[in-house]
Amino acid sequence: MRKGTIFFENKPRIIATGTIAGPKECVGVVGQYVDQALTDDTFGESTYEKAECKMLTYAVRRAIQNAKLVEEEMDLLISGDLLNQIISASFTARDFDIPFLGVYSACSTLSESFALSAVFVNSGYAKNVVAATGSHFSSAERQYRYPLELGNTRPPQSQWTVTGAGGTVISNAGSDIAITSATIGRVVDFGITDVNNMGAAMAPAACDTILAHLQATGKRAEDYDLILTGDLGALGSRLLKHLSEQKGVDLSPNHVDCGEIIYNVIEDEFQGGSGAGCSAVVFNSYIWNKLKKAEIKKVLFCATGALLSTVSSGQGESIPCIAHAVEIENVKT
Amino acid sequence: MRKGTIFFENKPRIIATGTIAGPKECVGVVGQYVDQALTDDTFGESTYEKAECKMLTYAVRRAIQNAKLVEEEMDLLISGDLLNQIISASFTARDFDIPFLGVYSACSTLSESFALSAVFVNSGYAKNVVAATGSHFSSAERQYRYPLELGNTRPPQSQWTVTGAGGTVISNAGSDIAITSATIGRVVDFGITDVNNMGAAMAPAACDTILAHLQATGKRAEDYDLILTGDLGALGSRLLKHLSEQKGVDLSPNHVDCGEIIYNVIEDEFQGGSGAGCSAVVFNSYIWNKLKKAEIKKVLFCATGALLSTVSSGQGESIPCIAHAVEIENVKT
Repeated sequence: MRKGTIFFENKPRIIATGTIAGPKECVGVVGQYVDQALTDDTFGESTYEKAECKMLTYAVRRAIQNAKLVEEEMDLLISGDLLNQIISASFTARDFDIPFLGVYSACSTLSESFALSAVFVNSGYAKNVVAATGSHFSSAERQYRYPLELGNTRPPQSQWTVTGAGGTVISNAGSDIAITSATIGRVVDFGITDVNNMGAAMAPAACDTILAHLQATGKRAEDYDLILTGDLGALGSRLLKHLSEQKGVDLSPNHVDCGEIIYNVIEDEFQGGSGAGCSAVVFNSYIWNKLKKAEIKKVLFCATGALLSTVSSGQGESIPCIAHAVEIENVKT
Repeated sequence: MRKGTIFFENKPRIIATGTIAGPKECVGVVGQYVDQALTDDTFGESTYEKAECKMLTYAVRRAIQNAKLVEEEMDLLISGDLLNQIISASFTARDFDIPFLGVYSACSTLSESFALSAVFVNSGYAKNVVAATGSHFSSAERQYRYPLELGNTRPPQSQWTVTGAGGTVISNAGSDIAITSATIGRVVDFGITDVNNMGAAMAPAACDTILAHLQATGKRAEDYDLILTGDLGALGSRLLKHLSEQKGVDLSPNHVDCGEIIYNVIEDEFQGGSGAGCSAVVFNSYIWNKLKKAEIKKVLFCATGALLSTVSSGQGESIPCIAHAVEIENVKT
């Protein structure tokens, strides 16, 4: 590995996913592809945090089940989430007798987890790994911004945290869809301090990682059917295209952002979806379906994360961001 | 890997460490071994969170320097901490042009990071990795418990969060001290709900991982010069010995807990030290010195983490815990 790029010569396979999403999310493009569409975003729980954890647990269990594996066959669970001390992931891990690695990379948790899973499988340390993350609008809103009861006005540059979770089983064999390489991102901070403008904060990190990946692999943007970012939203996506164009790379023909496409109706959610659950649901349902059907064959999946906390912002800090990229390819010959 | 145990046939080496600790910590056993002993626990910063981050940045930079390497030669930074959204690690990573993997495993962050670093180095994906973590008494106290200004009475089962940070460089060559195997822990929850009794909460997780490691490697406790836990404290250490004895394993001859030994005078800190910085400082200074001098040759290092948050405890949850073990050995023949 130099400059963060790893090549997986044994081509670890993505063999199954498990997904669940909230009522608002299921009105959109992911609705017909998720394993469970919730009609009640509390999922029968007494708090939003417990609902978030229950969704993540569902996604892990369902992914293992969809892989036609059982818990005992899983070597590793890699998971993280947005809540303080990643309690959704830790309490989910408590429900499984699987060795657990907790990670934190904000909304880029899924691509960090994919990269780590591929490292473990490619090197032979693990046969079956489950990577999972999720988020919940209401738990994120009250942790990062204001209690919902305040009914605060949302500014137009804001995004809507996705209520949903996704789990992914990565194995040494079992499908044609492989993780062929990955680029671990560096922290990039362009000095954005507006905690409602995640897209602008994260776009430079996405640009840095995507361009580093293209350079390390010797590929061009058009070599991919899809360059899929996590939750830049509409504004952040425009900024990414602008930033990469300045560096001589045109991403516009094949760039899609999970946050930009997850909601049908742009109303309260303004710039689109965000949250670790955004790319977890979109990749693991809608995109996964297209990969399985070979409608798309080669994806550069680059989830993006804003590594702020209410404390860092309260103490006047700007927002450091990161993005990790994984190359996912149908390797059927 | 089965049941979480990985063997590192290429024997990744620990080649250098960098450490810094607060005034209270430096009165104790680590005082003469740390690279920098602070006389002021604000480290010249305006907030405790900024001081914590500055310590972590120091530890990373110093570890790289002590390894006689430069930033450009580092392939990966693996770090996490206790603060919400691991801001110490993320803001530290912002200061370095090194690919960054954020992890969260509470006070077992260092051993999780060691295991991951060894995976990357052993498999050839990285040549030089820096693993780092830290904590600060005052930032932890106000995040997890009460504002210091309240002057709350501390119960006798409590521990004192260590102010300090440690960084470790793990490379493919450069010393005789190798990471030879690791066991990734599972989440264990014995139903403890007292957030002041971390030792009791974490002891079962330490027991689970240590016994799993001994079983997977076919070793006995007495094969190690030292079985080093992270921050069980005095009470937690007694519980670990009791629990393992019940399972037929006597750890008492060679078990030492970083939290139990870090403070000389047991006064306010009652059961001893805790926090991600506890084992980060003790291992990387005091123990590292003994390993380098070959005074001890084989250590099973098992840091322990309590995966709670104020939200999970406030919602009535018990405390899920985890421990990751790494076997560290002087392989000079």
